Amino acid sequence: MDRYLVISSDCHTGPPAEVFRDYLDPNYRPQFEDFMDELRAAQPQGTLKSKFMGQDRSSSMQDTFLASDRVKEGGQEGAWDPVVREREMDQDGVAAEILFPVPQTPKGITHGFPPFKAGLMAYCADGPGACNVPYDVQWAGAQAYNRWLAELCSHNPARHHGAINCPMGDIEAAVGEIRQARKAGLSVLHLPTLGWATTELESMYHHPRFEPIWDVCEELELPLVSHPLLSGVDYGELPGKLPIYGIEVFTAAHRTWWFLLYGGVFERHPKLKFVITEAGGGWAPYMLWRLDELYEGAKDTSLRQRLPRKPSEYWADHGFIGASPPAGRLEVEQRDVIGVRNILWGSDYPHFEGTWPYSRQRMKAMFGGIPVEDVRLMLGESAVEVYGFDREKLAPIAERIGPPVSEFKDPSPVEAKDFLRLWTDQEALAKLGKR
Amino acid sequence: MDRYLVISSDCHTGPPAEVFRDYLDPNYRPQFEDFMDELRAAQPQGTLKSKFMGQDRSSSMQDTFLASDRVKEGGQEGAWDPVVREREMDQDGVAAEILFPVPQTPKGITHGFPPFKAGLMAYCADGPGACNVPYDVQWAGAQAYNRWLAELCSHNPARHHGAINCPMGDIEAAVGEIRQARKAGLSVLHLPTLGWATTELESMYHHPRFEPIWDVCEELELPLVSHPLLSGVDYGELPGKLPIYGIEVFTAAHRTWWFLLYGGVFERHPKLKFVITEAGGGWAPYMLWRLDELYEGAKDTSLRQRLPRKPSEYWADHGFIGASPPAGRLEVEQRDVIGVRNILWGSDYPHFEGTWPYSRQRMKAMFGGIPVEDVRLMLGESAVEVYGFDREKLAPIAERIGPPVSEFKDPSPVEAKDFLRLWTDQEALAKLGKR
Repeated sequence: MDRYLVISSDCHTGPPAEVFRDYLDPNYRPQFEDFMDELRAAQPQGTLKSKFMGQDRSSSMQDTFLASDRVKEGGQEGAWDPVVREREMDQDGVAAEILFPVPQTPKGITHGFPPFKAGLMAYCADGPGACNVPYDVQWAGAQAYNRWLAELCSHNPARHHGAINCPMGDIEAAVGEIRQARKAGLSVLHLPTLGWATTELESMYHHPRFEPIWDVCEELELPLVSHPLLSGVDYGELPGKLPIYGIEVFTAAHRTWWFLLYGGVFERHPKLKFVITEAGGGWAPYMLWRLDELYEGAKDTSLRQRLPRKPSEYWADHGFIGASPPAGRLEVEQRDVIGVRNILWGSDYPHFEGTWPYSRQRMKAMFGGIPVEDVRLMLGESAVEVYGFDREKLAPIAERIGPPVSEFKDPSPVEAKDFLRLWTDQEALAKLGKR
Repeated sequence: MDRYLVISSDCHTGPPAEVFRDYLDPNYRPQFEDFMDELRAAQPQGTLKSKFMGQDRSSSMQDTFLASDRVKEGGQEGAWDPVVREREMDQDGVAAEILFPVPQTPKGITHGFPPFKAGLMAYCADGPGACNVPYDVQWAGAQAYNRWLAELCSHNPARHHGAINCPMGDIEAAVGEIRQARKAGLSVLHLPTLGWATTELESMYHHPRFEPIWDVCEELELPLVSHPLLSGVDYGELPGKLPIYGIEVFTAAHRTWWFLLYGGVFERHPKLKFVITEAGGGWAPYMLWRLDELYEGAKDTSLRQRLPRKPSEYWADHGFIGASPPAGRLEVEQRDVIGVRNILWGSDYPHFEGTWPYSRQRMKAMFGGIPVEDVRLMLGESAVEVYGFDREKLAPIAERIGPPVSEFKDPSPVEAKDFLRLWTDQEALAKLGKR
């Protein structure tokens, strides 16, 4: 094939919030009306630009995005409309995708947040009382989202692999929901990130209470995927809160790796895989070194009995980077350390900080001049293995819409340190050419 | 000078706990007797090997240490005896040192923990209620420790720079204690690390309530130093708890950097310096990259107004690695990125995971074959600047006891990945030869 098979490890989807009403257990209608009132109060009519932590999101990044023809032509409606979505995927060269909640379109928070803080807001896996939402209510929100998502995926199951969302407070119920959602067509488990402020032992992933989750995911061949949204810490209305959040929300997302690793989850479940999505990738080389160092230095007999292999060896088989922005050229240059099979490209469609609608220019900057076989792995071939996509069904799609191999043969015009400017700098993007 | 001036950025000191009785405000005698009872209960007589988080510390590392002639000959009594201490420093080639609490000798916790969880256990800077000790009681413990420490330093102030310990709950009182301890001869401020689980906004270092601390430290030319001990999270009695602690306690210690940085502390206090001690160093290259990335990507006008320079530029002038173990060859090889002036060697004397009594062999492995001018900076010359040592007073000491420059001229026989084995592997150490 002279085109690349491209799979995005990081995409988002969700309908206008009111759509969830029809997917929700009717017993929770009163809570749903309250939820809608809260959304409307938080986002006055006519406010389109999204806010984050009480501030306008970084404006030039968003302005660049909103000025794009494709966004103006309604491509972001692909957040909930599968026909528009597949048109955009085709134009972007993306054959298939992993789907998370919270599309965060310019239409703001009235679009796409699952009700009752299910989904990406269910960080900490705290179960009862998480996010101040009663457990059964949050649970109802997650089920409504899963039902809606399964319907979207059913439009073209080969291209859309949806992440099951379920709060982990009641493990038996979660296992039941996972089995049911798998039958309905979802094929990945969203594992909520730990918060920085998580102090409940039962929320930490080395706790044995999660064992039935690992069991069912291994049995059903569901990879675990995590995606940060909140760090779990309130930095107050103080200068510095946004970049402090920016560093801590990623580290909170990396945390899951060492709880699973040292908890022995991968030793007991040799088929289980775990992807840390949209939390960078440049952190991995040092972390792999440090985790090995702790292992080698410990001389703790019981640790070596439980984990006969070095942490970096478990990583090679079980740990993956979902390499959507801010991952970029740095991670590609470090691929021999991170593992060329452990880097899974992502677009973050339809988020404005993602690569859409410029994914092919961004790929050129990220992969230009890298050996084709390596690029094939990072752009999609590893994702086929990790997430269990059907290569035969995707091949004809990639033949039709995948970026030609020749497109990324020239060396990248963008150095790792300048890669980030592509977010904000139309001129830098223009240098990469239209496509 | 054909010898190196060596300064250890990380040493520990403290007397047998009962000694503190005489340094304590007599109003707190009843609490002190309770404290002594607790220590004795926690460490049955005859138990010499230290425990940590309920488990024996990694045994081969400690066995190697305890088998050393210098330890058997009582060199660890230098934890509280300045005559023994200086003899050991001389034999180790160390001219001067920064002093933290908690010497953690094989005599266990009845030796050297400041009373009432002051010192390194006052993590989180939580003030009232920190560690379940009433604020005034913890405060009394810190003062007792500071008095004892000032006396030790007075034995030879050019060689011993002691870190002031004071809880930060009451800022005005802390400023008073800092002024008083400075007059008494202490010259560094121990800034407690943040815990992972710190959620009180007033405990986070971007909070404006700390401004008088930064003011007084800049005025008195006191560098800020932090040193991890606890991560602030209880991982339960579960497999994996020790290595999970091992990774998180370091990251919790790194945290302070981005709170100070993005809080604008160094922009407002151009003379202030901050050292992250004994928390590795290999983490710094990625972190510097990521903090710049957040800065460059933010396009937040107010951020750039508050911080006109890039994070990595603030690091160059204000951020330092106290490079005691586990820092080693990796950090030295990354010195162009971390900054050769930003790496300050440390021995961790008298901790068994430190380099004493093999500091000179360890230096050979860490610095062998590196240009002499770089080694001079990392071993002591930068420390003179950062901590304000008196070079003229130290020069004759270094002339007498410093390692000859010729000693480290051959390439290191130890690769970065094997450096850690020196902790546990007598054979590897033997290869480095008797100094």
